[in-house]
Amino acid sequence: MADGAPLSDMLAVAVEAAKAAGDIIRKGFSQKKTVEHKGQVDLVTETDKACEELIFNHLKKYYPDHKFIGEETSAVFGTDELTDHPTWIVDPLDGTTNFVHGFPFVCVSIGLTIGKLPTIGVVYNPILNELFTGVRGQGAFLNGSPIKASSQDELVKALLVTEAGTNRDVAVVDGTTNRINKLLFKVRSIRMCGSLAMNLCGVACGRLDLCYEIGFGGPWDVAAGVVIVQEAGGLVFDPDGGELNLMSRRAAASNSHLKDEFVKVLTS
Amino acid sequence: MADGAPLSDMLAVAVEAAKAAGDIIRKGFSQKKTVEHKGQVDLVTETDKACEELIFNHLKKYYPDHKFIGEETSAVFGTDELTDHPTWIVDPLDGTTNFVHGFPFVCVSIGLTIGKLPTIGVVYNPILNELFTGVRGQGAFLNGSPIKASSQDELVKALLVTEAGTNRDVAVVDGTTNRINKLLFKVRSIRMCGSLAMNLCGVACGRLDLCYEIGFGGPWDVAAGVVIVQEAGGLVFDPDGGELNLMSRRAAASNSHLKDEFVKVLTS
Repeated sequence: MADGAPLSDMLAVAVEAAKAAGDIIRKGFSQKKTVEHKGQVDLVTETDKACEELIFNHLKKYYPDHKFIGEETSAVFGTDELTDHPTWIVDPLDGTTNFVHGFPFVCVSIGLTIGKLPTIGVVYNPILNELFTGVRGQGAFLNGSPIKASSQDELVKALLVTEAGTNRDVAVVDGTTNRINKLLFKVRSIRMCGSLAMNLCGVACGRLDLCYEIGFGGPWDVAAGVVIVQEAGGLVFDPDGGELNLMSRRAAASNSHLKDEFVKVLTS
Repeated sequence: MADGAPLSDMLAVAVEAAKAAGDIIRKGFSQKKTVEHKGQVDLVTETDKACEELIFNHLKKYYPDHKFIGEETSAVFGTDELTDHPTWIVDPLDGTTNFVHGFPFVCVSIGLTIGKLPTIGVVYNPILNELFTGVRGQGAFLNGSPIKASSQDELVKALLVTEAGTNRDVAVVDGTTNRINKLLFKVRSIRMCGSLAMNLCGVACGRLDLCYEIGFGGPWDVAAGVVIVQEAGGLVFDPDGGELNLMSRRAAASNSHLKDEFVKVLTS
Protein backbone atom coordinates (compact mmCIF):
# COMPACT_ATOMS: atom_id res chain seq x y z
CA MET A 1 0.00 0.00 0.00
CA ALA A 2 1.68 3.22 -1.13
CA ASP A 3 2.34 5.74 1.66
CA GLY A 4 0.18 3.59 3.90
CA ALA A 5 -2.89 5.21 2.29
CA PRO A 6 -5.68 2.72 1.62
CA LEU A 7 -6.53 2.19 -2.05
CA SER A 8 -10.09 3.37 -1.38
CA ASP A 9 -8.75 6.80 -0.32
CA MET A 10 -6.63 7.03 -3.45
CA LEU A 11 -9.62 6.04 -5.58
CA ALA A 12 -11.69 8.81 -3.97
CA VAL A 13 -8.98 11.40 -4.70
CA ALA A 14 -8.72 10.24 -8.32
CA VAL A 15 -12.51 10.40 -8.75
CA GLU A 16 -12.51 13.96 -7.36
CA ALA A 17 -9.82 14.95 -9.86
CA ALA A 18 -11.65 13.26 -12.74
CA LYS A 19 -14.93 14.97 -11.91
CA ALA A 20 -13.30 18.40 -11.64
CA ALA A 21 -11.61 17.89 -15.02
CA GLY A 22 -14.90 16.57 -16.38
CA ASP A 23 -16.57 19.85 -15.46
CA ILE A 24 -14.04 21.72 -17.60
CA ILE A 25 -14.58 19.30 -20.50
CA ARG A 26 -18.35 19.62 -20.24
CA LYS A 27 -18.17 23.42 -20.28
CA GLY A 28 -15.83 23.44 -23.29
CA PHE A 29 -17.71 20.74 -25.20
CA SER A 30 -20.11 22.97 -27.12
CA GLN A 31 -17.76 25.95 -27.49
CA LYS A 32 -15.42 26.72 -30.36
CA LYS A 33 -11.96 25.29 -29.61
CA THR A 34 -8.45 26.54 -30.14
CA VAL A 35 -6.72 23.54 -31.68
CA GLU A 36 -3.02 22.80 -32.01
CA HIS A 37 -1.76 20.01 -34.25
CA LYS A 38 0.74 17.52 -32.83
CA GLY A 39 0.67 15.82 -36.22
CA GLN A 40 -1.51 16.18 -39.31
CA VAL A 41 -4.45 14.53 -37.53
CA ASP A 42 -3.25 14.49 -33.90
CA LEU A 43 -4.77 17.34 -31.93
CA VAL A 44 -4.39 19.07 -28.60
CA THR A 45 -6.55 21.83 -27.10
CA GLU A 46 -6.31 24.27 -24.22
CA THR A 47 -8.81 22.01 -22.44
CA ASP A 48 -6.40 19.05 -22.55
CA LYS A 49 -3.72 21.18 -20.91
CA ALA A 50 -5.97 22.80 -18.31
CA CYS A 51 -7.36 19.40 -17.30
CA GLU A 52 -3.93 17.83 -16.95
CA GLU A 53 -2.70 20.70 -14.77
CA LEU A 54 -5.81 20.47 -12.58
CA ILE A 55 -5.54 16.68 -12.19
CA PHE A 56 -1.81 16.66 -11.42
CA ASN A 57 -2.12 19.52 -8.94
CA HIS A 58 -4.96 17.73 -7.17
CA LEU A 59 -3.08 14.41 -6.98
CA LYS A 60 0.18 16.09 -5.93
CA LYS A 61 -1.60 17.82 -3.05
CA TYR A 62 -2.49 14.42 -1.56
CA TYR A 63 0.46 12.36 -2.81
CA PRO A 64 3.46 14.68 -3.21
CA ASP A 65 5.91 11.77 -3.35
CA HIS A 66 4.17 9.87 -6.15
CA LYS A 67 5.39 9.99 -9.73
CA PHE A 68 3.35 11.29 -12.66
CA ILE A 69 3.10 10.43 -16.35
CA GLY A 70 0.73 12.55 -18.45
CA GLU A 71 -0.11 12.88 -22.11
CA GLU A 72 0.32 16.60 -22.58
CA THR A 73 2.97 17.88 -20.22
CA SER A 74 5.20 15.04 -19.04
CA ALA A 75 8.17 17.33 -19.55
CA VAL A 76 6.75 19.86 -17.10
CA PHE A 77 5.05 17.70 -14.50
CA GLY A 78 6.52 14.28 -14.60
CA THR A 79 8.43 11.52 -16.21
CA ASP A 80 8.21 9.19 -19.19
CA GLU A 81 9.72 6.24 -17.39
CA LEU A 82 7.59 3.71 -15.50
CA THR A 83 9.21 2.58 -12.24
CA ASP A 84 8.06 0.51 -9.26
CA HIS A 85 7.20 3.72 -7.42
CA PRO A 86 3.47 4.59 -7.19
CA THR A 87 2.83 6.41 -10.49
CA TRP A 88 -0.27 8.25 -11.67
CA ILE A 89 -0.71 7.86 -15.42
CA VAL A 90 -3.15 10.43 -16.79
CA ASP A 91 -4.88 11.22 -20.04
CA PRO A 92 -6.71 14.46 -19.17
CA LEU A 93 -8.90 14.22 -22.29
CA ASP A 94 -8.99 10.96 -24.23
CA GLY A 95 -10.81 11.47 -27.52
CA THR A 96 -9.50 14.97 -28.26
CA THR A 97 -10.66 14.75 -31.89
CA ASN A 98 -14.17 13.89 -30.66
CA PHE A 99 -13.98 16.82 -28.23
CA VAL A 100 -12.98 19.24 -31.00
CA HIS A 101 -15.90 18.04 -33.16
CA GLY A 102 -18.46 17.74 -30.35
CA PHE A 103 -18.78 13.95 -30.67
CA PRO A 104 -19.74 12.59 -27.25
CA PHE A 105 -17.11 9.83 -26.74
CA VAL A 106 -14.63 11.78 -24.62
CA CYS A 107 -13.27 11.02 -21.16
CA VAL A 108 -10.75 11.66 -18.43
CA SER A 109 -8.51 8.63 -17.75
CA ILE A 110 -6.58 8.37 -14.47
CA GLY A 111 -4.62 5.22 -13.61
CA LEU A 112 -2.30 4.39 -10.74
CA THR A 113 0.45 1.76 -10.98
CA ILE A 114 2.21 0.36 -7.92
CA GLY A 115 5.20 -1.84 -8.61
CA LYS A 116 4.37 -1.25 -12.31
CA LEU A 117 1.04 -3.04 -11.76
CA PRO A 118 -2.11 -1.12 -12.79
CA THR A 119 -3.92 -0.87 -9.45
CA ILE A 120 -6.52 1.91 -9.65
CA GLY A 121 -8.46 3.03 -12.73
CA VAL A 122 -10.90 5.91 -13.16
CA VAL A 123 -12.47 6.73 -16.54
CA TYR A 124 -15.06 9.51 -16.56
CA ASN A 125 -17.15 10.60 -19.56
CA PRO A 126 -18.75 13.89 -18.47
CA ILE A 127 -20.94 14.16 -21.58
CA LEU A 128 -22.63 10.75 -21.22
CA ASN A 129 -22.27 10.98 -17.43
CA GLU A 130 -20.51 7.62 -17.11
CA LEU A 131 -17.97 7.08 -14.32
CA PHE A 132 -16.08 3.79 -14.59
CA THR A 133 -13.90 2.78 -11.64
CA GLY A 134 -11.78 -0.23 -10.77
CA VAL A 135 -9.47 -1.11 -7.89
CA ARG A 136 -7.30 -4.23 -7.99
CA GLY A 137 -9.03 -6.97 -6.00
CA GLN A 138 -12.11 -4.86 -5.32
CA GLY A 139 -14.17 -5.06 -8.55
CA ALA A 140 -15.20 -2.69 -11.32
CA PHE A 141 -18.13 -0.29 -11.34
CA LEU A 142 -20.13 2.02 -13.61
CA ASN A 143 -21.66 4.90 -11.65
CA GLY A 144 -21.36 2.77 -8.53
CA SER A 145 -22.98 -0.41 -9.88
CA PRO A 146 -20.85 -3.53 -10.43
CA ILE A 147 -20.05 -4.32 -14.06
CA LYS A 148 -18.78 -7.44 -15.77
CA ALA A 149 -17.43 -8.35 -19.20
CA SER A 150 -19.76 -10.16 -21.60
CA SER A 151 -20.34 -13.91 -21.59
CA GLN A 152 -20.29 -14.19 -25.40
CA ASP A 153 -18.28 -17.26 -26.41
CA GLU A 154 -18.80 -17.23 -30.19
CA LEU A 155 -16.48 -14.95 -32.17
CA VAL A 156 -19.06 -14.58 -34.96
CA LYS A 157 -21.45 -12.99 -32.45
CA ALA A 158 -18.85 -10.63 -30.96
CA LEU A 159 -18.89 -6.83 -31.33
CA LEU A 160 -15.36 -5.50 -31.79
CA VAL A 161 -14.02 -1.97 -31.35
CA THR A 162 -10.77 -0.55 -32.74
CA GLU A 163 -9.44 2.79 -33.98
CA ALA A 164 -7.71 4.15 -37.08
CA GLY A 165 -5.12 6.01 -34.96
CA THR A 166 -3.24 9.13 -36.06
CA ASN A 167 -0.32 7.69 -38.05
CA ARG A 168 -0.90 8.07 -41.80
CA ASP A 169 2.19 6.25 -43.10
CA VAL A 170 1.09 3.98 -45.96
CA ALA A 171 2.33 0.76 -44.29
CA VAL A 172 0.54 1.62 -41.03
CA VAL A 173 -2.77 2.51 -42.70
CA ASP A 174 -2.58 -0.60 -44.89
CA GLY A 175 -1.96 -2.71 -41.77
CA THR A 176 -4.97 -1.09 -40.07
CA THR A 177 -7.40 -1.70 -42.93
CA ASN A 178 -6.06 -5.21 -43.65
CA ARG A 179 -6.79 -6.19 -40.04
CA ILE A 180 -10.28 -4.69 -40.29
CA ASN A 181 -10.83 -6.64 -43.51
CA LYS A 182 -9.80 -9.96 -41.92
CA LEU A 183 -11.85 -9.33 -38.80
CA LEU A 184 -15.04 -8.43 -40.70
CA PHE A 185 -15.25 -12.07 -41.83
CA LYS A 186 -14.94 -13.34 -38.25
CA VAL A 187 -16.91 -11.02 -35.94
CA ARG A 188 -20.44 -9.62 -35.94
CA SER A 189 -19.44 -6.02 -36.55
CA ILE A 190 -16.83 -3.35 -35.89
CA ARG A 191 -17.11 -0.01 -34.13
CA MET A 192 -14.61 2.88 -34.16
CA CYS A 193 -15.59 5.59 -31.68
CA GLY A 194 -12.41 7.56 -31.07
CA SER A 195 -11.43 6.85 -27.43
CA LEU A 196 -9.38 3.82 -26.39
CA ALA A 197 -10.08 4.41 -22.70
CA MET A 198 -13.84 4.37 -23.41
CA ASN A 199 -13.38 1.32 -25.64
CA LEU A 200 -11.75 -0.61 -22.79
CA CYS A 201 -14.59 0.40 -20.48
CA GLY A 202 -17.02 -0.82 -23.15
CA VAL A 203 -15.41 -4.29 -22.91
CA ALA A 204 -15.49 -4.06 -19.10
CA CYS A 205 -19.24 -3.43 -19.00
CA GLY A 206 -20.04 -5.97 -21.72
CA ARG A 207 -21.42 -3.60 -24.38
CA LEU A 208 -18.40 -4.53 -26.49
CA ASP A 209 -16.77 -7.98 -26.55
CA LEU A 210 -13.36 -7.26 -28.07
CA CYS A 211 -11.00 -4.30 -28.42
CA TYR A 212 -7.56 -3.72 -29.87
CA GLU A 213 -5.41 -0.83 -30.97
CA ILE A 214 -1.86 -0.75 -32.27
CA GLY A 215 0.16 2.48 -32.25
CA PHE A 216 -1.88 4.70 -29.92
CA GLY A 217 -0.49 7.65 -27.95
CA GLY A 218 0.95 6.12 -24.79
CA PRO A 219 0.31 4.44 -21.43
CA TRP A 220 -2.19 7.16 -20.42
CA ASP A 221 -4.70 5.71 -22.92
CA VAL A 222 -4.78 2.31 -21.18
CA ALA A 223 -3.45 2.49 -17.59
CA ALA A 224 -6.91 3.08 -16.08
CA GLY A 225 -8.92 0.93 -18.49
CA VAL A 226 -6.70 -2.11 -17.89
CA VAL A 227 -7.67 -2.31 -14.20
CA ILE A 228 -11.34 -1.77 -14.99
CA VAL A 229 -11.37 -4.57 -17.62
CA GLN A 230 -9.51 -7.02 -15.36
CA GLU A 231 -11.69 -6.29 -12.34
CA ALA A 232 -14.77 -6.82 -14.54
CA GLY A 233 -13.53 -10.33 -15.37
CA GLY A 234 -12.10 -9.45 -18.77
CA LEU A 235 -8.61 -10.01 -20.16
CA VAL A 236 -6.00 -7.52 -21.34
CA PHE A 237 -3.05 -8.58 -23.46
CA ASP A 238 -0.77 -7.63 -26.30
CA PRO A 239 -2.43 -8.04 -29.73
CA ASP A 240 0.10 -10.85 -30.37
CA GLY A 241 -1.36 -12.75 -27.40
CA GLY A 242 1.54 -12.05 -25.04
CA GLU A 243 1.55 -10.03 -21.86
CA LEU A 244 0.43 -6.41 -22.09
CA ASN A 245 3.29 -3.90 -21.84
CA LEU A 246 1.82 -0.56 -20.70
CA MET A 247 4.59 1.36 -22.48
CA SER A 248 4.39 -0.44 -25.84
CA ARG A 249 1.48 1.48 -27.43
CA ARG A 250 -0.16 -1.87 -28.30
CA ALA A 251 -3.16 -3.24 -26.43
CA ALA A 252 -6.05 -5.66 -26.72
CA ALA A 253 -8.90 -6.70 -24.45
CA SER A 254 -11.60 -9.35 -24.49
CA ASN A 255 -14.10 -11.04 -22.26
CA SER A 256 -12.86 -14.24 -20.62
CA HIS A 257 -13.89 -16.52 -23.53
CA LEU A 258 -12.70 -15.04 -26.80
CA LYS A 259 -9.02 -14.16 -26.38
CA ASP A 260 -7.44 -17.18 -28.11
CA GLU A 261 -9.71 -17.12 -31.17
CA PHE A 262 -9.35 -13.32 -31.41
CA VAL A 263 -5.54 -13.44 -31.23
CA LYS A 264 -5.50 -16.16 -33.88
CA VAL A 265 -7.24 -13.81 -36.33
CA LEU A 266 -5.19 -10.76 -35.31
CA THR A 267 -1.89 -12.61 -35.84
CA SER A 268 -2.91 -14.56 -38.98
CA MET B 1 -50.33 19.32 -47.61
CA ALA B 2 -51.51 15.72 -47.16
CA ASP B 3 -55.12 15.38 -45.99
CA GLY B 4 -55.10 19.10 -45.32
CA ALA B 5 -53.27 18.40 -42.05
CA PRO B 6 -50.50 20.94 -41.35
CA LEU B 7 -46.98 19.51 -41.29
CA SER B 8 -46.59 20.65 -37.68
CA ASP B 9 -49.48 18.36 -36.64
CA MET B 10 -47.93 15.44 -38.48
CA LEU B 11 -44.55 16.14 -36.85
CA ALA B 12 -46.21 16.11 -33.41
CA VAL B 13 -47.87 12.75 -34.13
CA ALA B 14 -44.57 11.30 -35.35
CA VAL B 15 -42.74 12.57 -32.24
CA GLU B 16 -45.40 10.98 -30.01
CA ALA B 17 -44.92 7.66 -31.81
CA ALA B 18 -41.11 7.90 -31.60
CA LYS B 19 -41.19 8.67 -27.87
CA ALA B 20 -43.57 5.78 -27.13
CA ALA B 21 -41.32 3.40 -29.10
CA GLY B 22 -38.30 4.92 -27.34
CA ASP B 23 -39.80 3.97 -24.00
CA ILE B 24 -39.93 0.33 -25.12
CA ILE B 25 -36.33 0.49 -26.36
CA ARG B 26 -35.13 2.07 -23.10
CA LYS B 27 -36.85 -0.61 -21.04
CA GLY B 28 -35.38 -3.42 -23.15
CA PHE B 29 -31.89 -1.89 -23.40
CA SER B 30 -30.34 -3.48 -20.33
CA GLN B 31 -32.28 -6.76 -20.48
CA LYS B 32 -31.28 -10.00 -22.16
CA LYS B 33 -32.69 -10.07 -25.71
CA THR B 34 -34.24 -12.77 -27.85
CA VAL B 35 -32.40 -12.39 -31.13
CA GLU B 36 -33.31 -13.70 -34.58
CA HIS B 37 -30.84 -13.67 -37.44
CA LYS B 38 -31.92 -12.23 -40.79
CA GLY B 39 -28.41 -13.04 -42.05
CA GLN B 40 -25.20 -14.15 -40.34
CA VAL B 41 -24.71 -10.71 -38.80
CA ASP B 42 -28.11 -9.06 -39.49
CA LEU B 43 -30.30 -9.19 -36.40
CA VAL B 44 -33.89 -8.55 -35.38
CA THR B 45 -35.41 -8.61 -31.90
CA GLU B 46 -38.87 -8.66 -30.39
CA THR B 47 -38.31 -4.99 -29.56
CA ASP B 48 -37.90 -4.10 -33.25
CA LYS B 49 -41.23 -5.75 -34.00
CA ALA B 50 -43.10 -4.34 -31.00
CA CYS B 51 -41.88 -0.82 -31.81
CA GLU B 52 -42.87 -1.04 -35.47
CA GLU B 53 -46.37 -2.24 -34.57
CA LEU B 54 -46.76 0.56 -32.02
CA ILE B 55 -45.53 3.24 -34.43
CA PHE B 56 -47.66 2.09 -37.37
CA ASN B 57 -50.78 1.73 -35.21
CA HIS B 58 -50.27 5.23 -33.84
CA LEU B 59 -49.73 6.79 -37.28
CA LYS B 60 -52.64 4.85 -38.82
CA LYS B 61 -54.99 6.14 -36.13
CA TYR B 62 -54.35 9.72 -37.29
CA TYR B 63 -53.64 9.09 -40.96
CA PRO B 64 -55.55 5.97 -42.04
CA ASP B 65 -55.17 6.80 -45.74
CA HIS B 66 -51.39 7.20 -45.71
CA LYS B 67 -49.06 4.48 -46.93
CA PHE B 68 -46.44 2.77 -44.78
CA ILE B 69 -43.00 1.28 -45.41
CA GLY B 70 -41.27 -0.37 -42.45
CA GLU B 71 -38.13 -2.40 -41.91
CA GLU B 72 -39.55 -5.39 -40.10
CA THR B 73 -43.08 -6.01 -41.24
CA SER B 74 -43.74 -4.35 -44.60
CA ALA B 75 -45.53 -7.49 -45.70
CA VAL B 76 -48.04 -7.16 -42.84
CA PHE B 77 -48.48 -3.41 -42.53
CA GLY B 78 -47.49 -1.80 -45.75
CA THR B 79 -45.76 -1.71 -49.05
CA ASP B 80 -42.26 -1.77 -50.49
CA GLU B 81 -43.05 0.65 -53.29
CA LEU B 82 -42.58 4.39 -52.91
CA THR B 83 -45.39 6.37 -54.59
CA ASP B 84 -46.39 10.04 -54.62
CA HIS B 85 -48.91 9.30 -51.87
CA PRO B 86 -47.97 10.47 -48.35
CA THR B 87 -45.84 7.58 -47.05
CA TRP B 88 -44.44 7.00 -43.59
CA ILE B 89 -41.07 5.22 -43.78
CA VAL B 90 -40.10 3.74 -40.44
CA ASP B 91 -37.13 2.03 -38.85
CA PRO B 92 -38.48 1.14 -35.41
CA LEU B 93 -34.98 0.43 -34.05
CA ASP B 94 -31.97 1.54 -36.08
CA GLY B 95 -28.82 0.04 -34.63
CA THR B 96 -30.27 -3.35 -33.68
CA THR B 97 -26.79 -4.84 -33.19
CA ASN B 98 -25.97 -2.00 -30.77
CA PHE B 99 -29.28 -2.64 -28.98
CA VAL B 100 -28.50 -6.34 -28.59
CA HIS B 101 -25.06 -5.54 -27.14
CA GLY B 102 -26.15 -2.56 -25.02
CA PHE B 103 -24.12 -0.04 -27.03
CA PRO B 104 -25.88 3.33 -26.76
CA PHE B 105 -26.15 4.37 -30.46
CA VAL B 106 -29.72 3.22 -31.11
CA CYS B 107 -32.71 5.17 -32.35
CA VAL B 108 -36.22 5.24 -33.75
CA SER B 109 -36.37 6.74 -37.28
CA ILE B 110 -39.67 8.01 -38.69
CA GLY B 111 -39.78 9.81 -42.05
CA LEU B 112 -42.68 11.05 -44.16
CA THR B 113 -42.46 11.49 -47.92
CA ILE B 114 -45.03 13.48 -49.89
CA GLY B 115 -44.74 13.27 -53.67
CA LYS B 116 -41.70 11.04 -52.98
CA LEU B 117 -40.01 14.04 -51.30
CA PRO B 118 -38.71 13.50 -47.73
CA THR B 119 -40.78 16.08 -45.82
CA ILE B 120 -40.76 15.21 -42.12
CA GLY B 121 -37.98 13.49 -40.19
CA VAL B 122 -37.90 12.33 -36.57
CA VAL B 123 -34.89 10.46 -35.12
CA TYR B 124 -35.02 9.68 -31.40
CA ASN B 125 -32.25 8.08 -29.34
CA PRO B 126 -33.90 7.18 -26.02
CA ILE B 127 -30.62 6.13 -24.37
CA LEU B 128 -28.74 9.39 -25.00
CA ASN B 129 -32.04 11.32 -24.82
CA GLU B 130 -31.55 13.03 -28.19
CA LEU B 131 -34.59 13.93 -30.30
CA PHE B 132 -33.70 15.18 -33.79
CA THR B 133 -36.52 16.66 -35.87
CA GLY B 134 -36.78 18.29 -39.28
CA VAL B 135 -39.66 19.59 -41.38
CA ARG B 136 -39.12 20.71 -44.99
CA GLY B 137 -38.79 24.50 -45.03
CA GLN B 138 -38.99 24.80 -41.26
CA GLY B 139 -35.50 23.94 -40.01
CA ALA B 140 -33.87 21.14 -38.02
CA PHE B 141 -33.71 20.78 -34.26
CA LEU B 142 -32.07 18.73 -31.49
CA ASN B 143 -34.27 18.60 -28.39
CA GLY B 144 -35.98 21.76 -29.61
CA SER B 145 -32.85 23.82 -30.29
CA PRO B 146 -31.92 24.70 -33.90
CA ILE B 147 -28.98 22.75 -35.34
CA LYS B 148 -26.78 23.30 -38.35
CA ALA B 149 -24.18 21.32 -40.26
CA SER B 150 -20.52 22.15 -39.66
CA SER B 151 -18.64 24.96 -41.42
CA GLN B 152 -15.49 22.88 -41.95
CA ASP B 153 -14.16 23.50 -45.47
CA GLU B 154 -10.92 21.47 -45.37
CA LEU B 155 -11.27 17.75 -46.07
CA VAL B 156 -8.14 16.98 -44.01
CA LYS B 157 -9.87 18.42 -40.94
CA ALA B 158 -13.15 16.55 -41.49
CA LEU B 159 -14.49 13.78 -39.26
CA LEU B 160 -16.15 11.06 -41.34
CA VAL B 161 -18.58 8.34 -40.30
CA THR B 162 -19.41 5.14 -42.20
CA GLU B 163 -20.40 1.53 -41.40
CA ALA B 164 -19.21 -1.95 -42.26
CA GLY B 165 -22.77 -3.10 -43.07
CA THR B 166 -24.03 -6.68 -42.82
CA ASN B 167 -23.00 -8.16 -46.19
CA ARG B 168 -19.90 -10.37 -45.82
CA ASP B 169 -19.34 -11.24 -49.50
CA VAL B 170 -15.62 -10.90 -50.21
CA ALA B 171 -16.06 -8.28 -52.95
CA VAL B 172 -18.32 -6.17 -50.72
CA VAL B 173 -16.01 -6.31 -47.68
CA ASP B 174 -12.97 -5.56 -49.86
CA GLY B 175 -14.82 -2.56 -51.33
CA THR B 176 -15.65 -1.34 -47.83
CA THR B 177 -12.10 -1.56 -46.47
CA ASN B 178 -10.55 -0.19 -49.68
CA ARG B 179 -12.72 2.94 -49.35
CA ILE B 180 -11.75 3.29 -45.68
CA ASN B 181 -8.09 2.94 -46.66
CA LYS B 182 -8.34 5.69 -49.32
CA LEU B 183 -10.28 8.00 -47.05
CA LEU B 184 -7.86 7.66 -44.11
CA PHE B 185 -5.28 9.55 -46.18
CA LYS B 186 -7.72 12.39 -46.87
CA VAL B 187 -9.78 13.05 -43.72
CA ARG B 188 -8.94 13.62 -40.04
CA SER B 189 -10.43 10.37 -38.79
CA ILE B 190 -13.19 7.81 -39.25
CA ARG B 191 -15.93 6.71 -36.91
CA MET B 192 -18.20 3.63 -37.21
CA CYS B 193 -20.96 3.67 -34.61
CA GLY B 194 -23.61 1.32 -35.96
CA SER B 195 -26.62 3.50 -36.82
CA LEU B 196 -26.98 5.27 -40.18
CA ALA B 197 -29.91 7.37 -38.93
CA MET B 198 -27.79 8.61 -36.00
CA ASN B 199 -24.85 9.18 -38.36
CA LEU B 200 -26.97 11.45 -40.58
CA CYS B 201 -28.12 13.38 -37.49
CA GLY B 202 -24.44 13.69 -36.50
CA VAL B 203 -23.79 15.48 -39.81
CA ALA B 204 -26.91 17.61 -39.27
CA CYS B 205 -25.74 18.88 -35.88
CA GLY B 206 -22.12 19.35 -36.97
CA ARG B 207 -20.46 16.77 -34.71
CA LEU B 208 -19.58 14.84 -37.86
CA ASP B 209 -18.71 16.44 -41.21
CA LEU B 210 -19.18 13.57 -43.67
CA CYS B 211 -21.15 10.32 -43.84
CA TYR B 212 -21.64 7.58 -46.38
CA GLU B 213 -22.88 4.02 -46.49
CA ILE B 214 -23.33 1.65 -49.42
CA GLY B 215 -25.58 -1.41 -49.14
CA PHE B 216 -27.58 -0.66 -45.99
CA GLY B 217 -31.01 -2.10 -45.17
CA GLY B 218 -33.47 0.16 -46.96
CA PRO B 219 -35.17 3.58 -47.16
CA TRP B 220 -36.14 3.40 -43.45
CA ASP B 221 -32.49 4.03 -42.51
CA VAL B 222 -32.37 7.39 -44.31
CA ALA B 223 -35.87 8.81 -44.93
CA ALA B 224 -35.95 10.81 -41.69
CA GLY B 225 -32.25 11.72 -41.55
CA VAL B 226 -32.31 13.17 -45.07
CA VAL B 227 -34.80 15.91 -44.09
CA ILE B 228 -32.91 16.67 -40.90
CA VAL B 229 -29.56 17.03 -42.75
CA GLN B 230 -31.06 19.22 -45.49
CA GLU B 231 -32.91 21.45 -43.05
CA ALA B 232 -29.66 21.85 -41.07
CA GLY B 233 -27.98 23.22 -44.21
CA GLY B 234 -26.22 20.00 -45.15
CA LEU B 235 -26.28 18.05 -48.40
CA VAL B 236 -27.49 14.51 -49.13
CA PHE B 237 -26.51 12.68 -52.30
CA ASP B 238 -25.58 9.37 -53.83
CA PRO B 239 -21.96 8.37 -53.03
CA ASP B 240 -21.27 8.80 -56.79
CA GLY B 241 -22.24 12.49 -56.46
CA GLY B 242 -25.61 12.14 -58.18
CA GLU B 243 -29.05 12.63 -56.72
CA LEU B 244 -29.97 10.52 -53.69
CA ASN B 245 -32.43 7.72 -54.48
CA LEU B 246 -34.21 6.75 -51.25
CA MET B 247 -34.75 3.20 -52.51
CA SER B 248 -31.18 2.52 -53.71
CA ARG B 249 -29.56 1.55 -50.36
CA ARG B 250 -26.73 4.03 -51.09
CA ALA B 251 -26.42 7.38 -49.34
CA ALA B 252 -23.94 10.10 -48.47
CA ALA B 253 -24.15 13.39 -46.60
CA SER B 254 -21.86 16.34 -45.99
CA ASN B 255 -21.90 19.89 -44.78
CA SER B 256 -22.34 22.50 -47.53
CA HIS B 257 -18.59 22.79 -48.31
CA LEU B 258 -17.08 19.34 -48.67
CA LYS B 259 -19.31 17.37 -51.05
CA ASP B 260 -17.26 17.73 -54.26
CA GLU B 261 -13.89 16.86 -52.69
CA PHE B 262 -15.50 13.98 -50.76
CA VAL B 263 -17.16 12.51 -53.86
CA LYS B 264 -13.85 12.79 -55.74
CA VAL B 265 -12.20 10.50 -53.17
CA LEU B 266 -15.18 8.13 -52.93
CA THR B 267 -15.28 7.64 -56.71
CA SER B 268 -11.51 7.55 -57.31
